Parts: sequence; structure tokens; C-alpha cells
Amino acid sequence: MITVISRQHSIHNPKFEFYRGEKVPCFESPQRLEYVIQALHDRGHDVREAEQLSDRVLPTVHSQRYLQFLASAWDQWTALAADNIDKQPFPSVWPVRSLRSDIEPKNFIARLGLYSMDNGTPMAAGTWVAAKAGADAAVSAVALLNAGHTSAFCATRPPGHHAGPDFMGGYCFLNNAAIAAQSLRDSGCQRVAIIDVDYHHGNGTQTIFYDRPDVLFVSLHGDPRTEYPFYLGHADETGRGAGQGYNLNLPMTAGTDTATWFAALDTACRQIIRFQADALVISLGLDTFAEDPISRFTLQSDDFFHIGTRLATLRLPTVFIMEGGYATTALGHNTVNVLEGFDNAY
Amino acid sequence: MITVISRQHSIHNPKFEFYRGEKVPCFESPQRLEYVIQALHDRGHDVREAEQLSDRVLPTVHSQRYLQFLASAWDQWTALAADNIDKQPFPSVWPVRSLRSDIEPKNFIARLGLYSMDNGTPMAAGTWVAAKAGADAAVSAVALLNAGHTSAFCATRPPGHHAGPDFMGGYCFLNNAAIAAQSLRDSGCQRVAIIDVDYHHGNGTQTIFYDRPDVLFVSLHGDPRTEYPFYLGHADETGRGAGQGYNLNLPMTAGTDTATWFAALDTACRQIIRFQADALVISLGLDTFAEDPISRFTLQSDDFFHIGTRLATLRLPTVFIMEGGYATTALGHNTVNVLEGFDNAY
Repeated sequence: MITVISRQHSIHNPKFEFYRGEKVPCFESPQRLEYVIQALHDRGHDVREAEQLSDRVLPTVHSQRYLQFLASAWDQWTALAADNIDKQPFPSVWPVRSLRSDIEPKNFIARLGLYSMDNGTPMAAGTWVAAKAGADAAVSAVALLNAGHTSAFCATRPPGHHAGPDFMGGYCFLNNAAIAAQSLRDSGCQRVAIIDVDYHHGNGTQTIFYDRPDVLFVSLHGDPRTEYPFYLGHADETGRGAGQGYNLNLPMTAGTDTATWFAALDTACRQIIRFQADALVISLGLDTFAEDPISRFTLQSDDFFHIGTRLATLRLPTVFIMEGGYATTALGHNTVNVLEGFDNAY
Repeated sequence: MITVISRQHSIHNPKFEFYRGEKVPCFESPQRLEYVIQALHDRGHDVREAEQLSDRVLPTVHSQRYLQFLASAWDQWTALAADNIDKQPFPSVWPVRSLRSDIEPKNFIARLGLYSMDNGTPMAAGTWVAAKAGADAAVSAVALLNAGHTSAFCATRPPGHHAGPDFMGGYCFLNNAAIAAQSLRDSGCQRVAIIDVDYHHGNGTQTIFYDRPDVLFVSLHGDPRTEYPFYLGHADETGRGAGQGYNLNLPMTAGTDTATWFAALDTACRQIIRFQADALVISLGLDTFAEDPISRFTLQSDDFFHIGTRLATLRLPTVFIMEGGYATTALGHNTVNVLEGFDNAY
């Protein structure tokens, strides 16, 4: 399958994040994606730059005021003080229960908190351009399907599945999977399924489609009682209103064995078949890998080939969207294994 | 008037907080209160240890699960790793819009985030004992009123007015003003007014009584569009349901002059008279002082005497509760000025 990339991903390159209260180099680094692109080249894949723009679909997935904030956030930050250009902004207060989200504060850090769910989503000079380019790549991958390709891989970063309608979180700013799904709907697909196989629950994607029956969200992930994002991803979240029955969470205990994980993948696939989807978006996190530094599942490199094989049996036009995965040296190999497993079986 | 203190305040002594993304010594330090207690002694005040317990009233102000978390949080933290005893726990993710607060995560840092609104409320080994002792002092101050005293001052820390029904924030863990107000209600007062003169809006106190007509909350504070807590304290927050009309916010622009501030105090006092309160709780923040390092009003030391004078004209049984104020060397003098202004005029 064709891979769509954006070279601009690398200008999103914050120096550090907070991890367990300490400043550490960012797990979500440009090197991650370079490993993936290198592996794609090494194995002869067709890798292309994004050619479409996401401007039309973006405001149907994210709120206008959030998009306006994101697009100007770095300029707002550096306008505050000359030396901010060498610093990263982090929020310090969040509008939890009983606090209001309807009024945008004039204080920049408070605005950053309004549009965040954590302080683990570092921002840098190129964040907006890179995130927007990633969204453009997602739309470009959909355009390949519309042009008759059966599948496409959107190899971008920063990832997207934690980003909600109006907040960033978990390294994510724009929800590329949701943007791809909405773009498929806008292209004439009636029923789009999203399957999220990242180690972490795709809380943003779930939320964006939680009230809708036209987009099914299915997720396999570490139990949020112990794993990020902690406050969403439980099995009892099944959708709301018209969306009731169109959300399926399959949380698994940290350390879950590979056989159990693939049994959950079967359950997810059966749900997608019942839904009678006419297109599929895969939030492809690779952090289910046993050697991932911040996750606790046990998949081996060969298992990623089998993920692709299993997903191909759905026989749906399919867009793969890169999400997490932090074991950088194996990341490229594991990613390409999924794609080749899919291609071989389709 | 008699001052109630708790010597145990000093064991809440975290080493640092995050301020503008950097670790800095805590603004809310034991030295703050030592300055106040010293000034009280110097000027011949009757200073006593708390003698009552808050155990009965606490679960009527805060949720049971929040109290259980707070009481055991340090033990939970230090049980995670041997060297945590020399570290401070900080949350990293918060349950904002669309994320759930109903399920308590098993991950400690996620639990800390569940029960927090910011990462500016550092916790240390003695936090629970000190906070609980402060709540005991608030109840002890109420007991002095019940014994016939017209007023009492609760000189404790950590402060309380940002602490909500089930979250900490802004250096606050237990809401001493709310505890005093509820304790007055439980003692037979029918209508209790709370006036919050801290520079920062008392979001926790407002929220605790927002649906109730028996406790009026009135606050003078820096406009939340630019000042902490940012997401509450606007003029359009007037109460809800049975509590409609029993909440009055008087936000003022940072830098507001003293005449404007005292005009707002008059407005607040008139509202308390209309309410026909039979007891008064004063959330006494001293950070309206011109030299306060983290606030932006312009009051001078003599103005604090006038605050006391004005509040005395309400002729109500009155409990003063210490809140913020960080200009430590002047803090004692300014605090005692309020009390003596009140005593002289009552």
C-alpha cells in the first residue's frame, strides 16, 4: 500500500516533557517517524508526500476556538517574553468538575490549561505546522482510497487519538484518525469503523464520535484503571443517544498475554462486521510491543504481521493512521510488518 | 478577639512548587503563619490551641472518597518506592471535559489528578495532619462563638478556599471557611454569610454552597480572566436551583485601586445585610496587599484596619479564617490590623 508522509513532522520537536515529575527528553520524537520511513524505504514501499489539505474537515472534528488557539499558541507564547522562544509552555491549572470551560481566559497559561487534559503534551515552535501537516496527510490517505486504492498508510506525527474535540493530550493535538473517518464520511461512506490498537485508549476519538451511529469506535487497550489516559476507556462506555451501541472498549490488564490480545482483536473485528462498515480507519499504535518503554503488553515483532493479516480479512477500504509506539529501533520494522501482513492477505 | 491556631501547621512543609514551569520554593510556607502568630503575640492577643475536632462536619463539606484519599495519600505515595519519601507527588493528567471522574483509578498519580484542579498544590508528609488540624481550628473558632464570643480568628494553614467538594487546588486541601460555615449552620444559625476578601476567587467555597439558599457566598477578587483560578469567579455566577441569588462575585481588574476595592466591599456588605445573615465567616486573604509577590491589587497596611472596621459594622457573630497572603514580613502586621480594626469598631 502507499504511505503518505509529511516531512514537516520533524519541526515539531520539543526538547523535553515531564515524566514522573522530572524533565526528560520527549518519548514522542522525530526519530520515531524517521525509523518508520527508513523501514518503508528499505522494504521498497511507495512513500509519498501529502497532497491534500484538511482545512475543510478540521472544523467538523475540532471546535473552532480550539483550532484558533492551536494555530496561534506558539506566537502567543513567544509574544509574552523574549526568552520564551527557548522555553516550552506547560499548563498549570485545568477546568475540572465545577470549573467552567465556556469562557476563554486572557491568561495564556490558563488558555493552555483550558485546551489540555494533561501536562504531558509539550509544544514547540513547529507544533501547529506539523500537526496540521499530519491532518493533511490523513485526508490525503483518504483521497487515495477515493482514487481506487484499497488501503493507505498515513505515517505522521505528532499522533492524534488522545486529542478531543477541544483539547490536546498525550502528545496529541489534532485527531488524525477522526479526521480520516470524517473525511471518509464526507466522501460518501455511510458507515465508517475505527479500530484503535494503540496500547492507550483513544479517548479523543471515542469522544468525538460518542453520540453518533455513523462512526463505530472499537478500542483494544491497557485498562485505564492503571494506564493512561486513566479517566476513559472502560468497558461500560457504549455510546450515548443516537450513538448508543456504537462504541466498544476492550480494556485489558497490563501484562496481558498475546493470545488474549488477539482474542480481543477477533471480538473487535466481529463487531465491525456486524456494524456493516463500508470503510475502516486503524489507529495504529505500536506500543503494544513487549519492549516498548512506557507500555505493558507483550506483542513480538511477528505478531504485528498477524495484526495486518487479521485486519485484511475485513476486506474494507482501509486507512492506517500512525499513533504511538516508542521503542524506536524496532518501531519501523513492526510498523511495516502490519502493512505487509495486511497487503499479503488482502 | 481570640485567635485559634494549630501548632501542627508547620509539618505541612513541601520543599518546592512548580511556578511558571520551574521548581521554586513554596510561596505557601510555614513562615507565613509564624509571622502572623508573632504579630499576634507582639500586640498582646489571646492565642489558643484548637480544642475541637472537625470529624463530624468534614464529610458534610467534602466527599467521603476525597477525604479517604487525602488522609492516606502520603502513605500511598511512599509505599510506591522507597525514595519517594524525599520526593513530592505531582499529578500529570486531569479529568477535564468528557473524561470521567466517577471511577477512582488504581494508579496513584491518576488518583492525585482526579482529586486536583492544578499541579500547584504540593503535598508533603505532614499535609493531612496539618490540613485536618486547620479544619479542627475552624470548628474550634465556631465553638468560641457558641460559647458567647462575638468573634474569633482561625490562624491556620494550609489555606482552604480553593478546595472543592472533592478536589484540592491553589495550596488548599480542606475548605476551612466552608467547614466553619457548615459548623455554624449545625450550631443553629439559620443563615450564614461568607465573604471572601482574598485576591483569588474562592472557587471551592462557591461550589460547595452553590445550590444552597442557607449559605450566602460573596467574593471580592481579581478578575479570573487574568487571575487564578481562571475558570470560576465571574459576575454571572449567581447560584443554581434553590441557591439561585445566593452567590455574588465582584471580580476586579488586576491593578484596581483601593477606592474601587472598598466600594466593592460596601456592595458585598449590603448584600449580606439583605440576606439577613445571623453569622459571618470571613475568608481572610491578605494578598490584596500592594507588595504581595503573586497578586495585583494595591492595598496598603492601613487599609487592612479599615477592612476590619467595615466588616464590624455588620454586627454579626464573626469567624475569620486565614487564607492567602504571601508578603511574609508584612503579613503579620496586616492580619492583626484587620482584627484590631474589627475589635475597635464592634
